[in-house]
Amino acid sequence: MSKIIAINAGSSSLKFQLFDMPNEDVVTKGLVERIGLDNAVFTITDTNGEKQTEVTDIPDHAVAVKILLAKLTDLEIIQSLDEINGIGHRVVHGGEQFNDSVLISDETLAAIEELSDLAPLHNPANVVGIKAFKEVLPNVPAVAVFDTAFHQTMPEQSFLYSLPYEYYKEYGIRKYGFHGTSHKYVSERAAELLGRPIEQLRLISCHLGNGASIAAIEGGHSIDTSMGFTPLAGVAMGTRSGNIDPALLPFIMEKTGKTAEEVLEILNKKSGLLGISGLSSDLRDITQAAEEGNERAETALEVFANRIHKYIGSYAARMSGVDAIIFTAGIGENSIEVRERVMLGLEFMGVYWDPALNKVRGEETFISYPHSPVKVIIIPTNEEVMIARDVVKLAL
Amino acid sequence: MSKIIAINAGSSSLKFQLFDMPNEDVVTKGLVERIGLDNAVFTITDTNGEKQTEVTDIPDHAVAVKILLAKLTDLEIIQSLDEINGIGHRVVHGGEQFNDSVLISDETLAAIEELSDLAPLHNPANVVGIKAFKEVLPNVPAVAVFDTAFHQTMPEQSFLYSLPYEYYKEYGIRKYGFHGTSHKYVSERAAELLGRPIEQLRLISCHLGNGASIAAIEGGHSIDTSMGFTPLAGVAMGTRSGNIDPALLPFIMEKTGKTAEEVLEILNKKSGLLGISGLSSDLRDITQAAEEGNERAETALEVFANRIHKYIGSYAARMSGVDAIIFTAGIGENSIEVRERVMLGLEFMGVYWDPALNKVRGEETFISYPHSPVKVIIIPTNEEVMIARDVVKLAL
Repeated sequence: MSKIIAINAGSSSLKFQLFDMPNEDVVTKGLVERIGLDNAVFTITDTNGEKQTEVTDIPDHAVAVKILLAKLTDLEIIQSLDEINGIGHRVVHGGEQFNDSVLISDETLAAIEELSDLAPLHNPANVVGIKAFKEVLPNVPAVAVFDTAFHQTMPEQSFLYSLPYEYYKEYGIRKYGFHGTSHKYVSERAAELLGRPIEQLRLISCHLGNGASIAAIEGGHSIDTSMGFTPLAGVAMGTRSGNIDPALLPFIMEKTGKTAEEVLEILNKKSGLLGISGLSSDLRDITQAAEEGNERAETALEVFANRIHKYIGSYAARMSGVDAIIFTAGIGENSIEVRERVMLGLEFMGVYWDPALNKVRGEETFISYPHSPVKVIIIPTNEEVMIARDVVKLAL
Repeated sequence: MSKIIAINAGSSSLKFQLFDMPNEDVVTKGLVERIGLDNAVFTITDTNGEKQTEVTDIPDHAVAVKILLAKLTDLEIIQSLDEINGIGHRVVHGGEQFNDSVLISDETLAAIEELSDLAPLHNPANVVGIKAFKEVLPNVPAVAVFDTAFHQTMPEQSFLYSLPYEYYKEYGIRKYGFHGTSHKYVSERAAELLGRPIEQLRLISCHLGNGASIAAIEGGHSIDTSMGFTPLAGVAMGTRSGNIDPALLPFIMEKTGKTAEEVLEILNKKSGLLGISGLSSDLRDITQAAEEGNERAETALEVFANRIHKYIGSYAARMSGVDAIIFTAGIGENSIEVRERVMLGLEFMGVYWDPALNKVRGEETFISYPHSPVKVIIIPTNEEVMIARDVVKLAL
């Protein structure tokens, strides 16, 4: 038995999950928030399954890691740090260099840092997390698991923008896609649930959380996905616009006097469900307001579902048909209302689903009728276990 | 019998077509190019069906109109200008004010001028054309026919971007859609060819020319279309990018040191088929180069067809199925290769087409098998006759 810790470091946060492998038991999990700010919050699940929370000053990620490791022994979750056999780090952007997870060396770490150009909000934070663990546990092997890697199988006709070709060659401008670890997990799990080899399956995976992306997965390989060069593209999201007419950027700049960066900030932070409804970026708030008769909340819900519905049609066309549609992540797993709206009227392509079966939240279950040519499955995602599996594969 | 002239005025050009109505015979047609530049070129078809070309100085649209009208009598195409009973002007942008064609009054002309904010490249030229005719033929009724009008039936969930809602209210930021006159013409013609009331039909119309747009037409009404706030959005085109990740604009600005307007110019003029291939914006050149083994031309062709193919899937989902797919405009009518690539692998949604029937150019014909649940039809578009019909309807 080995203990593997999976890490997801953000600019001021650090999520962790400790696994017993290969049986994939979660030993503990938790979260450090507000790193570098006043009153950082440390939360961890103890051996009784109770959440313990502590408010303290945590100036940087290295300190967060030290506190986390000290807690693991203090709370007797492990007896000694020697029990930790490997560390897996989620890294957002792997560019074209990384089409799979990789053992972290000085070279790969430098490559990940260089990719910060493509993911200025995410990769630097991931690098800080990697370095913090390296400082405290220098001899434990660490693995980087990339959000983009799964989508590196996309063919050129999917990943290339119809822009001047030299932009691709010189600046790396192309579709990368994100949520790859999640799309990979649910597609593999779908193959198990369907009892068919993944090589024979055409799957559409709808990862619907605060960020949302759809992927067309053929024979176990991503061949297209809705996010693009950045996670802004594709469907409407909590606060992100998804695709818009690109000519709107200069138009909004001119009308509002804002810079391109300021408009981009609005597209990332003030658009999506929040922008249309004016109420909230949280789908639960929107759904409730729509039920209470709020028209803009209803419109936000319609726009959100409509875009996903159209991606499903588009990816079915891309693969000349589809064997199963998967819903995952916060909204995909829990929103009965969104799933209903997304699936309404897909009978023409063989999707027959049961409204009664759909009335579940957070369960792994089929919601299509047994006779439906296209299956519809809810699969709670698990990116952390994918990270732990890759650590076992590469580092042990 | 009435004579109606249909006018399409660009910034330095003026296309015209003279009809005998209601039988819709084309009496003559022609084109003035390079207005305001050296060596303007005037082309007109004479009564023997021969093209006559003249190179002369034409300083502005008013002079172009005067030369055109003089030619009509000089060449004895008509005996007197009194024979012209109505004028129809193509106008690109009708905003939310115009959901149908309209008789041009001082008020409507002012409204069209105000809409120049939304279509700075097109509406001013259309207005110049309207004024030039008004000066020369002040007593002949004139009608404006808008490219956007047909799409005004789109519901909010289709036309609203997931941006801050006030952008819609304050700046008119929404999807308008274009090529409406063409989409309307081919959808009405498709209903005739199918022998079914248009109210019962779900149609996907692919207008593929230098500009290209796809429309979902349900019961005779446009309910979604691929172009957006401007004609830049949607599928890849001759020189236009279509949809890209909106975050690319600031990224390209930063990398190249260009302004937003300069990047927009690249998205409009240097992208699409031209951008990917580096060869040409003309699909015929691209097709030939691809056949000769040019890889980037092949990629450009793949990207072009792939985006259209996916829109067909997406709009079939939008309408819960489709009764017929229509190909029109230069590429749609003539490119066997593009139609083949677009239709490949749509059997899952009931599209069965005959490669032999598809081997035609510029003919109005079915290319689906008779038993195909979804029909596929090539319909040469005719925006001019739609303009003439609206003049008859509104002005005579």
